[in-house]
Amino acid sequence: MLVVMKPHATEPEIEAVVEKIRSLGLMAHPIPGAQRVAIGITGNKGGLEPELFTTLPGVADAIRVSQPFKLVSREVKEEDTVIDVGGVPLGGSALTVMAGPCSVESKEQLLAAAHAVKKTGARFLRGGAFKPRTSPYEFQGLGEEALKLLALAREETGLKVVTEVMDVETLPMVADYADVLQIGARNMQNYSLLKYLGTIRKPILLKRGPSATIKEWLMAAEYIVSRGNYQVALCERGIRTFETMTRNTLDLNAVPLLKALTHLPVIVDPSHGIGLRAHVAAMARAGVAAGADGIIVEVHPRPEKALSDGQQSLTPAEFDELMRQVRVIAGAIGRAV
Amino acid sequence: MLVVMKPHATEPEIEAVVEKIRSLGLMAHPIPGAQRVAIGITGNKGGLEPELFTTLPGVADAIRVSQPFKLVSREVKEEDTVIDVGGVPLGGSALTVMAGPCSVESKEQLLAAAHAVKKTGARFLRGGAFKPRTSPYEFQGLGEEALKLLALAREETGLKVVTEVMDVETLPMVADYADVLQIGARNMQNYSLLKYLGTIRKPILLKRGPSATIKEWLMAAEYIVSRGNYQVALCERGIRTFETMTRNTLDLNAVPLLKALTHLPVIVDPSHGIGLRAHVAAMARAGVAAGADGIIVEVHPRPEKALSDGQQSLTPAEFDELMRQVRVIAGAIGRAV
Amino acid sequence: MLVVMKPHATEPEIEAVVEKIRSLGLMAHPIPGAQRVAIGITGNKGGLEPELFTTLPGVADAIRVSQPFKLVSREVKEEDTVIDVGGVPLGGSALTVMAGPCSVESKEQLLAAAHAVKKTGARFLRGGAFKPRTSPYEFQGLGEEALKLLALAREETGLKVVTEVMDVETLPMVADYADVLQIGARNMQNYSLLKYLGTIRKPILLKRGPSATIKEWLMAAEYIVSRGNYQVALCERGIRTFETMTRNTLDLNAVPLLKALTHLPVIVDPSHGIGLRAHVAAMARAGVAAGADGIIVEVHPRPEKALSDGQQSLTPAEFDELMRQVRVIAGAIGRAV
Amino acid sequence: MLVVMKPHATEPEIEAVVEKIRSLGLMAHPIPGAQRVAIGITGNKGGLEPELFTTLPGVADAIRVSQPFKLVSREVKEEDTVIDVGGVPLGGSALTVMAGPCSVESKEQLLAAAHAVKKTGARFLRGGAFKPRTSPYEFQGLGEEALKLLALAREETGLKVVTEVMDVETLPMVADYADVLQIGARNMQNYSLLKYLGTIRKPILLKRGPSATIKEWLMAAEYIVSRGNYQVALCERGIRTFETMTRNTLDLNAVPLLKALTHLPVIVDPSHGIGLRAHVAAMARAGVAAGADGIIVEVHPRPEKALSDGQQSLTPAEFDELMRQVRVIAGAIGRAV
Repeated sequence: MLVVMKPHATEPEIEAVVEKIRSLGLMAHPIPGAQRVAIGITGNKGGLEPELFTTLPGVADAIRVSQPFKLVSREVKEEDTVIDVGGVPLGGSALTVMAGPCSVESKEQLLAAAHAVKKTGARFLRGGAFKPRTSPYEFQGLGEEALKLLALAREETGLKVVTEVMDVETLPMVADYADVLQIGARNMQNYSLLKYLGTIRKPILLKRGPSATIKEWLMAAEYIVSRGNYQVALCERGIRTFETMTRNTLDLNAVPLLKALTHLPVIVDPSHGIGLRAHVAAMARAGVAAGADGIIVEVHPRPEKALSDGQQSLTPAEFDELMRQVRVIAGAIGRAV
Repeated sequence: MLVVMKPHATEPEIEAVVEKIRSLGLMAHPIPGAQRVAIGITGNKGGLEPELFTTLPGVADAIRVSQPFKLVSREVKEEDTVIDVGGVPLGGSALTVMAGPCSVESKEQLLAAAHAVKKTGARFLRGGAFKPRTSPYEFQGLGEEALKLLALAREETGLKVVTEVMDVETLPMVADYADVLQIGARNMQNYSLLKYLGTIRKPILLKRGPSATIKEWLMAAEYIVSRGNYQVALCERGIRTFETMTRNTLDLNAVPLLKALTHLPVIVDPSHGIGLRAHVAAMARAGVAAGADGIIVEVHPRPEKALSDGQQSLTPAEFDELMRQVRVIAGAIGRAV
Repeated sequence: MLVVMKPHATEPEIEAVVEKIRSLGLMAHPIPGAQRVAIGITGNKGGLEPELFTTLPGVADAIRVSQPFKLVSREVKEEDTVIDVGGVPLGGSALTVMAGPCSVESKEQLLAAAHAVKKTGARFLRGGAFKPRTSPYEFQGLGEEALKLLALAREETGLKVVTEVMDVETLPMVADYADVLQIGARNMQNYSLLKYLGTIRKPILLKRGPSATIKEWLMAAEYIVSRGNYQVALCERGIRTFETMTRNTLDLNAVPLLKALTHLPVIVDPSHGIGLRAHVAAMARAGVAAGADGIIVEVHPRPEKALSDGQQSLTPAEFDELMRQVRVIAGAIGRAV
Repeated sequence: MLVVMKPHATEPEIEAVVEKIRSLGLMAHPIPGAQRVAIGITGNKGGLEPELFTTLPGVADAIRVSQPFKLVSREVKEEDTVIDVGGVPLGGSALTVMAGPCSVESKEQLLAAAHAVKKTGARFLRGGAFKPRTSPYEFQGLGEEALKLLALAREETGLKVVTEVMDVETLPMVADYADVLQIGARNMQNYSLLKYLGTIRKPILLKRGPSATIKEWLMAAEYIVSRGNYQVALCERGIRTFETMTRNTLDLNAVPLLKALTHLPVIVDPSHGIGLRAHVAAMARAGVAAGADGIIVEVHPRPEKALSDGQQSLTPAEFDELMRQVRVIAGAIGRAV
């Protein structure tokens, strides 16, 4: 249930509602909005009577939430969430552009990539320090050394840093360097990690699991948000299907559907979504046309030399050309880049 | 193998190559091109020696075709196929727009839809006369009565008619009325029907099977083309995955991949691809941005009254708004509408 | 809705119910049972009032059918359907065993296979005359020549013949030779073919489509049964999933579920279900343990020389060993072979 | 590469091979066998020359391993792995039977279940203390209280305890109480957890991820084994497909395939595999018939009151009946229970 306060409800009125909720043995989640405050209620087994709350002073309405995900739903918060990443918006009307190499490999490689994507208009630098790999014998990332290089690149370019965190153990270290913590697809339902992420105050980029339904994905976000961290963005990166010519099947259907179901920002990852360098640009364009709030693209100064994902990384020149097209398409649906 | 003739090869030179191929017990498929003629060879078990053909007069080259699909591949024919549907192009640089109701229901319904989509820029009218339905107890289409109404709508509007044919028995009747024969997803591997379609001279719109790989789809097209009917367009309409919030998963990855693999036109069906009226427009835009040669969209004057697919049909006004956006996006990647 | 007659209801009483149903503009489907006659009603849009029928003489009850499939459901007919194939039961308490080569290739090959599987206890001989192949350039079957060889093998061994029919055109010819008509997976939703099959009086073995849900499969059977042909058996042959190490994913979950949902016999095809000769026997055993009414297994005198499916065909010796194990497992759940 | 020592190779000979491997910058994994010691080599980029090792004293052979998984493959270790769980074998010729409630709910519930499954022949008690749930608002398990109850049940019955561990943080606590650590499907590719599991000396039951290929699953096991913990068993619990009538699609194809590819024990979980209480027994029988080394079955004294998975839990009486059938089927393929 969602209790909506009147526009000019006072702090004591809000506090009284929170107290009332707690006195019923339930959890209260105040959600600040541009116009009014709302308070989500979770923890109830059955339905609640609206009258329990509508009779309190300052309350405008009490609404039943029909979806199993509550706090991340549009029903509970109508306006788009825009995450403030140290002054740079993630989500909102301007397209969010994240780019950089799959793995951080060296100072030269990372700085070359960072300067290139910065010049073309990206405001976030992606780069893996800890890499989840299918085989224990494959390159697992440079670890803290990579994090230091990412921090250096941020210092040089002003780009915000997005990098994956794989576990609670290394989370404090990664959080020290990163601006946005990426949760990989295979960790989307690592509930212990999700719960912990709910207790920190860092923006999260939550990738969709390879076989997660849209509902399960929103429930994973709800794990984080319900523990107090509202700074969550969703990243569609392709699902697993029977098709083998492409690495994954980028499910762009998810984009307009999510924009209707949730207020969280929706980012598209065309690199993992198709996995074929020649076709990444087409899928990035499609993602933007479908209404995504942003894209995250693998760019490598020399893809043919990459230690991972070279076959799906764009060159800086290809990325530049892509951004030119994306600007026009974003404009066509009323977005800036 | 593909034998490529020199630009000014003569008819007797071409004929000599064809004879040579037949003398080896193989099939010859002359493929006319803008600049040169090429001759596809099929029926060989192992590889053929290029020297068998390169020594003949007028032959420029003899190339091994690496894909299991031959005549539909870009290797064999580099230029895009543009199908001439009575003066209206299907494929090519201008975006092909097909629209209309799922089923033909009445004269009023069909003419209202036809006039509306014509005004907005469609050049093809879709409408089902024979409907494949999961249940034997559901509405199966009006049959020949619907075909007559489609012909009437064509007469009134000049739109070309696209309608589904379900079997060889009714094919002559449907072909009498239709300009383009649509093969439904569940018939994509109905090989008896495909073989028959190869022997007629009508344009075919071949929908992808719900669980067909891209390779299997191209092999289905090869069934038609290898029997002599080169007028085949492919229609991506969504595949079956584990996601249940959407009717199908529109696989837009297929669009750039197909454009690289085949010379056949690629059409996107966002209506079946997502199955949710509110999101059809987003997916149509995404399809165009991904590089599709056209779109086919369900439009109904009163979707809430439709006998089939009402939940995924646009109103004429919604279609009008969609076309405005599509024009800008098509322009962004160098296409007219 | 299902109208259940009293055990000793008379012909005129039954006829009166049928008349009543027709007078309402609906279709009546009398279903003979061991103890009583029931009459299925289809064609109604909404629910019907039971009182319309329970007040008629001889009527015991009128039951709403909750599933979208009606005549094939257990709700409508409680006892297992056993199809009488010229004196040999398909379905019922004794395990039905069908075996033979993928394709009929020659007289020697077919007769060798037929004698071998007969000796081991099979009562049905499978063998393809018309072969649906992904590529138009692959072996398409020997056609009528193969049908003649199948008839010869029947004459020599007494085995009943199961062979695939691909279309309405060749159906009369195939039906002349075959005892059971197999409908291939890719034709499971070829509704024109299904409707036609409903009008003939031959047993049908309906394979599950590669991405058909259990409900869609039962609806496909309903197409046949609702037109009057009650002799339908279902064949699980594996579905399409993301796994690539096996040809298909044999969905044995379908077996107990189908046995609960429908009265039709359920056959398992482990050869296509896993596609790996070394593991066919394990999956045949599993199918029987799951409660299947029978198995259909590819057996070839010399699998390494087979024109199709050699990699999943058992030798006669392997089949013999399999049947020994199957007998014990069938016994463990109260079935003979 | 695998270096196979002669049957009577001495410790110094083995040590010399290990040293040689390390001197090349590679990792050595000695694998004790019944007849001989073998030493797996990992960490090499390309192929290694066998002569590097075959010339050393005591070496019988040096074999290239063709699969990407090395230490878990049959190529590297031919005999079945049998895990010794405090005197009770997991794997091997006798069928391993694990049973118990989904979640530990109370002392009464757990002890009732434990005594019941013990009486019927199970030697392992399953029961969840920490529960991964799709929704943050669902019952998450009793935690340490449940672990204490499991230990009590072990004391009373002698059953070995199998319970899920969700993260590195709670692992020491869970390991204190449990005999076998279960890794849930959604954690199958939680590589941080897998690496940690490789460093401890507890048996692991590794469930297959809902969309993991068999190869990815074996690679996940390789993560654990390559770090030194050889006590890993695999548990097939169903994969995610398009079918919605069942909770998952139990992929029994995986059973014979795994038995050929790996020496690790293979357990089947029919409860999650189909998710429907009425059909769990059929799938357990099928798993045994397919050649599984064991089954893990949810049993609850009162399924209709269960806090989780009640719809797929057997009553003790149903489990008893199942075990009777399983004994016969196991016997049919040469296994005891």
